[in-house]
Amino acid sequence: MYNLNFIDTKYKPKNELIAEYHVEPYRIDFRKACNHIAGESSIGTWTDIGTLSKEMFKRLKPTVFSIKKDKIKIAYPLDLFEKGNMSQILSSIAGNIFGMKSVKHLRLIDIDFPKELVRSFKGPGMGLEDIRNFTKIKDRPIAGTIYKPKIGLTDKEQAKLAYRIYKAGIDFSKDDENLCSMRFNSFRDRTVRILEVIDKIKDEEGRNVIYVPNVTAPYEEMMKRTEFVYEHGGKAIMMDILTTGFSAHEALSKDFRKMIIHGHRALHGALTRDKHEGISMLVIAKIARLLGVSSLHTGTVVGKMEGTKEEVSEINDFLKSKWFGLKRVMPAASGGLHPGLIPLVMKYLGNDLIINCGGGLWGHPDGYEAGVKAIRQSIDATMEGISLRDYSKNHYELRRALEKWGS
Amino acid sequence: MYNLNFIDTKYKPKNELIAEYHVEPYRIDFRKACNHIAGESSIGTWTDIGTLSKEMFKRLKPTVFSIKKDKIKIAYPLDLFEKGNMSQILSSIAGNIFGMKSVKHLRLIDIDFPKELVRSFKGPGMGLEDIRNFTKIKDRPIAGTIYKPKIGLTDKEQAKLAYRIYKAGIDFSKDDENLCSMRFNSFRDRTVRILEVIDKIKDEEGRNVIYVPNVTAPYEEMMKRTEFVYEHGGKAIMMDILTTGFSAHEALSKDFRKMIIHGHRALHGALTRDKHEGISMLVIAKIARLLGVSSLHTGTVVGKMEGTKEEVSEINDFLKSKWFGLKRVMPAASGGLHPGLIPLVMKYLGNDLIINCGGGLWGHPDGYEAGVKAIRQSIDATMEGISLRDYSKNHYELRRALEKWGS
Repeated sequence: MYNLNFIDTKYKPKNELIAEYHVEPYRIDFRKACNHIAGESSIGTWTDIGTLSKEMFKRLKPTVFSIKKDKIKIAYPLDLFEKGNMSQILSSIAGNIFGMKSVKHLRLIDIDFPKELVRSFKGPGMGLEDIRNFTKIKDRPIAGTIYKPKIGLTDKEQAKLAYRIYKAGIDFSKDDENLCSMRFNSFRDRTVRILEVIDKIKDEEGRNVIYVPNVTAPYEEMMKRTEFVYEHGGKAIMMDILTTGFSAHEALSKDFRKMIIHGHRALHGALTRDKHEGISMLVIAKIARLLGVSSLHTGTVVGKMEGTKEEVSEINDFLKSKWFGLKRVMPAASGGLHPGLIPLVMKYLGNDLIINCGGGLWGHPDGYEAGVKAIRQSIDATMEGISLRDYSKNHYELRRALEKWGS
Repeated sequence: MYNLNFIDTKYKPKNELIAEYHVEPYRIDFRKACNHIAGESSIGTWTDIGTLSKEMFKRLKPTVFSIKKDKIKIAYPLDLFEKGNMSQILSSIAGNIFGMKSVKHLRLIDIDFPKELVRSFKGPGMGLEDIRNFTKIKDRPIAGTIYKPKIGLTDKEQAKLAYRIYKAGIDFSKDDENLCSMRFNSFRDRTVRILEVIDKIKDEEGRNVIYVPNVTAPYEEMMKRTEFVYEHGGKAIMMDILTTGFSAHEALSKDFRKMIIHGHRALHGALTRDKHEGISMLVIAKIARLLGVSSLHTGTVVGKMEGTKEEVSEINDFLKSKWFGLKRVMPAASGGLHPGLIPLVMKYLGNDLIINCGGGLWGHPDGYEAGVKAIRQSIDATMEGISLRDYSKNHYELRRALEKWGS
């Protein structure tokens, strides 16, 4: 019934958007499933229709130009897309096709955006280099933490802890993803108190440390909270890019070009986890860079969250690569990290990295200040090429961390 | 190492948010996985931490109060949530947990929102009854279509087709999900032209028909486009709720209480498809109602998109149920429908329904006007309790549709 053909493996794409999919058909043959995917994501539907002219088809049809086992690549003409409209692009190439009966499993593995589309997005207002310049930390990873427990501290308690951990040597601290504006810890009170701490550290030590309040909220409130941080001299905010959504993400980045936007990715596992379904984290990282994050959680390889070495390295390499003039993005490794894991994280992911230890700081057997010291010692040891075992002989806090969590 | 216990199967929850999950642990026992999920979605992390006091734990800890095979229910105290902040709620109970190494598969099956949380959202400005009142179609399903091809028609062509299908008897027409503002069919030109058609139909026939332009776009542009529709007398817009995102969805609904917001759900399959992973469509439907859709795509049971009878019925029943005073939502069945399938769709899903035939209208062997007639004939036959076979004896367009597509 449905007889449009989109397959031409001799076709050489140029200046098109290229999407790569993993395809497992359901009760139809593979080539037919390819045609369904190409059609449903562009100009086709399940039956032939009188209103689709030959001229239209020729001008707008995508081409399945590569089929390798269960991986296919489709080139989409740019006229199918509205420039700068990420939601439209995704509704096309990552939309209905995921719900089609004719595929059992479908995964969007990668998107190759051509220059013209990349340039239709603003990308990060502040990037990796801006974070380096602001903190004046040029070579080593930035030592960060997430306040723990995730939720439960009052704003006063959190601000007190902030002062202590910055004094102990942490560079960067952030709210956890479920801490927004709570009955016992309001966004505004917390922000004011911790930004005062930031100023105090600057006065006392001359260090530019970073606090990242979580502005994730309904759109207007999110914008107001970000404005509030900006007015109080804050340099950074965190937004949960998937639970707020692409549209709000773009808007926040567009309006606050001088703010470091730290992208958290709660919910991503529901999309990225199963390697036969959903959307890869690489695709989400590309979208996040186009829409304008400054730093992005991408995985740890070694911590409590899933993500293989190859996968996380590929994502981090992309974020730090040149891309038609868009600023580079600083990857953030977070989730189950502790001092004993830092050398491996740096080995796998390099030094252009925010390393966030949450439990691995607050759970230190001698308290959180010892926790900060152990983290900094682990980073220093690794920068100097000394094993943690050797370094811990003369560094008590590191030794205590290794005793609790191993390495 | 991680020894917080959240399990108490004798616990009776009250005034809490209850989340139901499907859980498959990875290399740890089931109860441990339950504790990981409860902890990571609230106040815990992967290790014990000095800053979590007993008082905090007692006050904020969620309780796993039901374990039945691989299904568990967790009751979360409301202090863990910011009222009216859907992104925060999801970052907690549908966030990091999907990426944890300690679960192989995890699915959020259902959320039971207590009254206090439901009431912190505005819900639909216009609901099912408002759509019924506006169209004056009281009993039968609303006969709708999606312009096809999805993309390719110019604004002029689309407006010409609009006039012809409304004259032939269609009640409702909408843009497809990838049609936004294209080089050859701009949002504004299309909207003006088709809203003129709507006025003409009103003048000629006194009928209130609906056109649903797709405003899906970056936030500011989406709001401007909706304002543009409103100023030009349009009653409805479509937004793709997942590819724009929850934050923008809430904002649009809040600012346009008098507009019918038609929720498309492109991308949902990536979250909802696999029954062991991600988030159920029922949960997405609940979120969409809280954030304020008027009508929502929920499945067809019988068409080109997946979704079982039980699943789609449960979602539709929820959308049409009473819910702490929030307006009811009109389900939309769409995807692979044609006249031959309408009796089954109505049998399974009832009459409070928008039935959208795309290919099943535009692909009619005698053209789209015959396509509209066949759809209306199929609905009429079903309302009168007459089989399509019998009805088609005296209804040529229906007969021709059945010959092409079967029943």
